[in-house]
Amino acid sequence: MQETYIEEILKELTLEEKIGMIHGAGLFRTEGVERLSIPPLYMSDGPMGVRAEFADNEWRNVGTTEDYVTYLPCNSAIASTWNRDLAKKAGKVLGEEARGRGKDVILAPGINIKRSPLCGRNFEYMSEDPGLIEELVVPMIEGIQENDVAACVKHFAANSQETERLWVDTIIDEAALEEIYFPGFQAAVEKGHTLALMGAYNLLNGEHCCMSKSLLNEKLRKDWAFDGVVISDWGAVHDTKLAAESGLDLEMDVKYQFDEQYMADPLLKAVKDGEIEESLVDEKVRNILRMMLRLKMIGPERKHRKTGAYNTEEHRRAVLDVARESMILLKNEDQVLPLQAESGCKVAVIGVNAAAIHSNGGGSAEIKALYEISPLMGIKKLLGGNVKVSYAPGYVIPDKKETSEINWQAASTETAENTEKESTVSGRTLDEKQQEALAEAVALAKASDIVIFVGGLNHDFDVEGLDRVNMKLPYGQDEVIDALLKAVPDTVVCMYAGAPVEMPWAEKAKAILWSYYAGMEGGTALAEILSGKVNPSGKLAETFIRDASQCPAHTIGTFGKKDRVEYREGVMVGYRYYDTKKTDVLFPFGHGLSYTAFTYNDLEIIRQQENGRQTVKVSCSVTNTGEHAGKETVQIYVAPEQKKDRPVHELKAFEKVRLDAGETKRICVILEERDFSRYDTDKKMPVPVNGTYEIQVGASSTDICLCGKIDLFFAEG
Amino acid sequence: MQETYIEEILKELTLEEKIGMIHGAGLFRTEGVERLSIPPLYMSDGPMGVRAEFADNEWRNVGTTEDYVTYLPCNSAIASTWNRDLAKKAGKVLGEEARGRGKDVILAPGINIKRSPLCGRNFEYMSEDPGLIEELVVPMIEGIQENDVAACVKHFAANSQETERLWVDTIIDEAALEEIYFPGFQAAVEKGHTLALMGAYNLLNGEHCCMSKSLLNEKLRKDWAFDGVVISDWGAVHDTKLAAESGLDLEMDVKYQFDEQYMADPLLKAVKDGEIEESLVDEKVRNILRMMLRLKMIGPERKHRKTGAYNTEEHRRAVLDVARESMILLKNEDQVLPLQAESGCKVAVIGVNAAAIHSNGGGSAEIKALYEISPLMGIKKLLGGNVKVSYAPGYVIPDKKETSEINWQAASTETAENTEKESTVSGRTLDEKQQEALAEAVALAKASDIVIFVGGLNHDFDVEGLDRVNMKLPYGQDEVIDALLKAVPDTVVCMYAGAPVEMPWAEKAKAILWSYYAGMEGGTALAEILSGKVNPSGKLAETFIRDASQCPAHTIGTFGKKDRVEYREGVMVGYRYYDTKKTDVLFPFGHGLSYTAFTYNDLEIIRQQENGRQTVKVSCSVTNTGEHAGKETVQIYVAPEQKKDRPVHELKAFEKVRLDAGETKRICVILEERDFSRYDTDKKMPVPVNGTYEIQVGASSTDICLCGKIDLFFAEG
Repeated sequence: MQETYIEEILKELTLEEKIGMIHGAGLFRTEGVERLSIPPLYMSDGPMGVRAEFADNEWRNVGTTEDYVTYLPCNSAIASTWNRDLAKKAGKVLGEEARGRGKDVILAPGINIKRSPLCGRNFEYMSEDPGLIEELVVPMIEGIQENDVAACVKHFAANSQETERLWVDTIIDEAALEEIYFPGFQAAVEKGHTLALMGAYNLLNGEHCCMSKSLLNEKLRKDWAFDGVVISDWGAVHDTKLAAESGLDLEMDVKYQFDEQYMADPLLKAVKDGEIEESLVDEKVRNILRMMLRLKMIGPERKHRKTGAYNTEEHRRAVLDVARESMILLKNEDQVLPLQAESGCKVAVIGVNAAAIHSNGGGSAEIKALYEISPLMGIKKLLGGNVKVSYAPGYVIPDKKETSEINWQAASTETAENTEKESTVSGRTLDEKQQEALAEAVALAKASDIVIFVGGLNHDFDVEGLDRVNMKLPYGQDEVIDALLKAVPDTVVCMYAGAPVEMPWAEKAKAILWSYYAGMEGGTALAEILSGKVNPSGKLAETFIRDASQCPAHTIGTFGKKDRVEYREGVMVGYRYYDTKKTDVLFPFGHGLSYTAFTYNDLEIIRQQENGRQTVKVSCSVTNTGEHAGKETVQIYVAPEQKKDRPVHELKAFEKVRLDAGETKRICVILEERDFSRYDTDKKMPVPVNGTYEIQVGASSTDICLCGKIDLFFAEG
Repeated sequence: MQETYIEEILKELTLEEKIGMIHGAGLFRTEGVERLSIPPLYMSDGPMGVRAEFADNEWRNVGTTEDYVTYLPCNSAIASTWNRDLAKKAGKVLGEEARGRGKDVILAPGINIKRSPLCGRNFEYMSEDPGLIEELVVPMIEGIQENDVAACVKHFAANSQETERLWVDTIIDEAALEEIYFPGFQAAVEKGHTLALMGAYNLLNGEHCCMSKSLLNEKLRKDWAFDGVVISDWGAVHDTKLAAESGLDLEMDVKYQFDEQYMADPLLKAVKDGEIEESLVDEKVRNILRMMLRLKMIGPERKHRKTGAYNTEEHRRAVLDVARESMILLKNEDQVLPLQAESGCKVAVIGVNAAAIHSNGGGSAEIKALYEISPLMGIKKLLGGNVKVSYAPGYVIPDKKETSEINWQAASTETAENTEKESTVSGRTLDEKQQEALAEAVALAKASDIVIFVGGLNHDFDVEGLDRVNMKLPYGQDEVIDALLKAVPDTVVCMYAGAPVEMPWAEKAKAILWSYYAGMEGGTALAEILSGKVNPSGKLAETFIRDASQCPAHTIGTFGKKDRVEYREGVMVGYRYYDTKKTDVLFPFGHGLSYTAFTYNDLEIIRQQENGRQTVKVSCSVTNTGEHAGKETVQIYVAPEQKKDRPVHELKAFEKVRLDAGETKRICVILEERDFSRYDTDKKMPVPVNGTYEIQVGASSTDICLCGKIDLFFAEG
């Protein structure tokens, strides 16, 4: 029925009209066919909210006031909640706002693997673990798409670095692709039913992703049976014939010569000249029409398309809920947190990020947030008028003028010192200004009852198109933190950033609270956690290593090269590597503290048959032994006995559970064949491996609380 | 007990400490006395939200991110609701936010009489009618002060023009003062129990208000028994001895030489030299300490002081509620409103004010709004993604550069034409740009199904320190509206402004919706009314005359003079004059339409005795005869038979009532002796007048639906 309808329309379309539908006719839209009531397809960035309205044919914001939107926590934050319901809620906000703004496709979520902490776009991505990504991307897509808006999962595939992203060739072996880099996308297609995918800029094993037959035609269309739309990243197409023959449906570009795109006039001419089959064009149009039908843009359901909404109270509450569970209490000695700020007490809030606004940066993730509660405002708002909250920046971010010759990507004390000559514009050198800011902050700290430092990164580092060169904190923050901890040992250190940083002061700091970019209510959530109004429950979705030299992407493989990066570490990504090599990381994957305490008991591992397939039922009790209600994410890792060249264990399930003080709940998960499988390069499929397995239940990848063994023998497939 | 406590502290204070408490020691604070635990007194503008944080001794915003706040509708908007509960709600938001921001005194509300539509600060004021002001200022003060924050009602008194406001002498006869210019302040003191008042800049009958014995010592302190704090407007004090001897308690200034203020070192010296009695200083300190006690800043209740809150969800809802009832449907022929915007239809929104942001202007009323929903966003947000909303500015606001030689206060086509030479900076003259904008708007209108124009004024006109020179719409808007009405006769005209404007096109326009600056959710409310989601219920709290020449302040009295303005029209202000003279105004006082219809029936007027005093009980039925639920404000005017030199009638009571479709409710008000009194200049008091009165019940001052007569004879006082 649906396909008949599509074929009927297809018959009516001229070649010119079809060509108009498969390439950008505006920066974020295609051409419609008015005589057949086919509207243009309107797309928008981005993952943290619907981006500001762009001029149709000029790379600038329209600049009026109707495009302020709800600012969502970034995907790294969402992943840290380990909460499927919140992922769905976030998706719902994004989808509803996109529809409310009149969009058909929202270019989100981004789910590339965090292979190295230095990838500039990691804040837009979820995790180093494909299993966690799978579990969260599916509800997020569902949330988006229930608004009659298409998700466009990106960037397919293996777009895990920004350096020379249009031309870098990414070399990855088959097993690593299948076990690490593909599962998130496969789940998005097969379980999330995403209506669109975005092809990545980079080459994968020698082929540009957006023109790759092996990636798009074989893997995506054939193996995963994807019948939705593949959209190129903006400017990722480089050849008419290759693009036409690939599974790509829609070429988009950042340039304004829309007719000159590869899938525009050049393709039209090639078809007319008989060099390219028109059937290739038809196939792309079919995919686009099918998506339009599903979105109720065309067809009989047209009048029932959802209308969307943006900047609603419900959306603000949703993003606050996500922010609250996204923040990770990394360390809390001597119960420094939660803070006790009584009437009349003096609170010092120090650090530029306390007062900073981040929504307007990051590249395509930038948005015009309706508002953004900074941590400073969050703290003042929560503590109220009887507590004196004072702010000092503590460090200085050089003006653009001052930084014109500084590569802040390589921010370090040395670099800053080298630029003293350039930075005397305002009569004082940058170093003098830094020292003054430091002295002011230390004086304020000493005169206060409570000291909170809020530093970290910003979108000069967490940004599209650029990778970091190291994990160091910029702007001399380490020195400031050291000085504050010396002056006031109970200083609470908060980091607000999109990717992990070196924390040479971690041993000295009693309390460390981590937040990714947490959306418009981020500052509210941060304050609620600091004050104990909210009990933290975020867990790391990526390992926090001590410095980038611990990362296998840098030591075993290569990263940041311009021509070719080799993923020689294979499947040994993130904790799979660190736990196997017993690397002394700073904070392990899955780590995150609470103001209450949990114990794990009574592990039960039962072999079962379900529909003729062998499964393993794992259950255990979790008890809140502390004094506050809280949430715990129970993680189940599977550790095979035969470990040669394999990760020591892998996350295969998790459950987040809410417990009142004193309460016990039993959690239960079912592990399936695929959880005991490896990709078999001969059979070209995952194959279960017989043998003995340890089932580990823990609060992080290294904090295993319970474990038990089970022998498994699988029937031949 | 309270007074004993005050005397005990007073005894402990040195003269220097006392002097420190009665003048500004920072731009918005006094000096505290730490050894006695007396904190500084923190004050803040302003009436539409708590103003951005200022540097202590420099006239600039601190510029961090913690001082964004809820942006409230202006007082003109609040008054248009004719809703006491909403006035209280608005006050509560303002007070709670002030406390949340750590303030002790909020410099609001402004309640000066709207004597002329040209006063630049009218948007901060409520009405031309003292009775309506009385009824709304009291709940507003209560709302503020229940948060342990002092209201500071301003500007006492008769600050009804901005021209040369520091030095203009305002000449008003006693009856006009007592019947028109004082009642709002008297109610604020006697019924609202305001803890503070702000003295005005201007002179009143030859004395500077902030140093006036007749105003402050006699009227305020003696007649009204005010024991709160009188704060000078910033820089309104001009003499040490006069200030010391007056009822003023606290001198504030805009300059940074705090010690040089009249009530600082000069007063200290004068007391030491024996020229001024220390007891005068003591009296001021007593008043300040009394307020501090009541605010729980000092004393035994200190620990129980409220902590406030800002940017809460509740506050956003409250300001939206106010905005919804503040907008006034002036005209609605052919049921053009509410709009029927169906899926797929095209809506043109035209006019710079559709997309403009106003929170950041106006002088001391400017605030850093957390956000502000523009009408354009409100409309898009409400209509959703299936309706195509397009925007065109329609007219051009010249750049500052272009306007440098234009007095936009005198904006008119002629003026704009005269400046063509200056405004060719960008290659086109201002006139060319205006013509282009107009052509674009008309073309858009013609191509659309629904056309909404949103124009009006902005804070270049509605501003502190400057009066308008006429009521004309600036920027050639009249021409744009004419052209739109010609192209699309159903064009809905919305005016967004702080004061009435000439509407030469009013006859032609079928639908006119008026909004004062309506706060952060103003655009939401506007859209809800346009779409019919909310039924309008605002009523004019000031007469909309056709042009300023109709106003008695200009024709009988004088206005805008620099040395001396004479209020020769006496009590004949606003509708009191227009209705008496049967002036052909544009829209009368009290006017405002609904999407439903109301009828008035069964008037009953009963003479009663209450506690030995004669009262009149007035009641009638109101029926909603239309098809939608709605609210009606029933107005009761008293018209004495003997009218020589007196207003033909005066508003003496009103009730706002909500009625479902078909519903009837009975409203009832009690009129008292004072409602039948005039100020007697011999007896120096209001005296009831015997005679026959007509009791008029109406939907506006000229739309009298019911009336009846009653004879009244009052006992000798």
